[in-house]
Amino acid sequence: MEIKVLQKVLAANDRVADENRGMFDANKITVINLMSSPGSGKTTLLDKTIEALKGELKIAVIEGDIQTTMDAERLSRHDVPIVQINTAAIGGDCHLDAAMISSALHDLKIEGLDLIFVENVGNLVCPAEFEIGEHFKAVVISVTEGEDKPLKYPLMFQVCKWAVISKTDLLSVLDFDIEKLRVYMKQVNPKLEVFELSARSGAGFDAWLDHIREAVRAKKQG
Amino acid sequence: MEIKVLQKVLAANDRVADENRGMFDANKITVINLMSSPGSGKTTLLDKTIEALKGELKIAVIEGDIQTTMDAERLSRHDVPIVQINTAAIGGDCHLDAAMISSALHDLKIEGLDLIFVENVGNLVCPAEFEIGEHFKAVVISVTEGEDKPLKYPLMFQVCKWAVISKTDLLSVLDFDIEKLRVYMKQVNPKLEVFELSARSGAGFDAWLDHIREAVRAKKQG
Repeated sequence: MEIKVLQKVLAANDRVADENRGMFDANKITVINLMSSPGSGKTTLLDKTIEALKGELKIAVIEGDIQTTMDAERLSRHDVPIVQINTAAIGGDCHLDAAMISSALHDLKIEGLDLIFVENVGNLVCPAEFEIGEHFKAVVISVTEGEDKPLKYPLMFQVCKWAVISKTDLLSVLDFDIEKLRVYMKQVNPKLEVFELSARSGAGFDAWLDHIREAVRAKKQG
Repeated sequence: MEIKVLQKVLAANDRVADENRGMFDANKITVINLMSSPGSGKTTLLDKTIEALKGELKIAVIEGDIQTTMDAERLSRHDVPIVQINTAAIGGDCHLDAAMISSALHDLKIEGLDLIFVENVGNLVCPAEFEIGEHFKAVVISVTEGEDKPLKYPLMFQVCKWAVISKTDLLSVLDFDIEKLRVYMKQVNPKLEVFELSARSGAGFDAWLDHIREAVRAKKQG
């Protein structure tokens, strides 16, 4: 009974997600949904990514948080459009859903944009269940979190196309086996494309940026 | 409407939580509910805590995960009773609730126990909403996660009596302002008791252990 209700909720969500995606496609905009545990470095990743790409691409951000506008404020220095969603105002949801994105689009002039980043609420569980109309789901996992996360939170790693292993500058002081993490990732999702990088040192960042550029180019041509 | 349903669910949960707590109290058992983001170091904290206390206290563990028994296996070397709850089998819930704890108690001989640790599902949002019958809720936050977490996930820090700041051995290589974290913690919950420790180096561990000993002693006498 409970499962039936949940399926209905998810089916309704998927319809709105399809509408969002249709609008993005009609405007040839690439949308990337960044998800992770709290504190894995999503905002810092976004900050450095926007800094590197804002000269060549028109970028906007949809910021999801239960409350506060701290992340949006951190990103505001880039002078790109940012819409904040605070789920506390609508029940405190621990994830973004398609209707919230649809509402956010009313506050965003999407014509002329190339790329929208959605920073989801920090949570490795529930955001994985909700399509929002994005083209790419990316999970961020820092090397401080432990190698077992793909096995313990498999849905997140299964629904994502991309995984970013962040904070690699800390590897030298941690007992962290990055190969073990990669094996577990492949085990739950053999197709996952994996990036290792440090937003602090810049190591590995070029491959990440090139991948985004290529996704945007493909959408423009498609 | 949606909120009404949620309140009913939570009211039903609270009734079962009260039953659990009544059973713990009748047996003079202290129950500590450990919550955090994935990867903040709950299992390592538990591992070192059990190692230090198992000679003097009768301890059991209820391990909550969506799936896998990896954490339970890590703790099994201590030869204390462990019951694993895998929420994947019952809908994939991102938190433990009182009924799950009640079920777990069928598999646990609680007579003679002094202390039960519950390791909740890794999630800084939803576990805060569900009473399970514990006496102490403790949030673990590692110094790799960012100082802003109490402001962004205030409910978790409001419901907890204790907060453990973990992985302090990494402070020297991070740009982390532990005083800022403490200010934010006090801001959302002035009564929060805060421990700073490193399970790896052992720094700060004695104060944490003494606090647990004192809680167990008070329950035995009360």
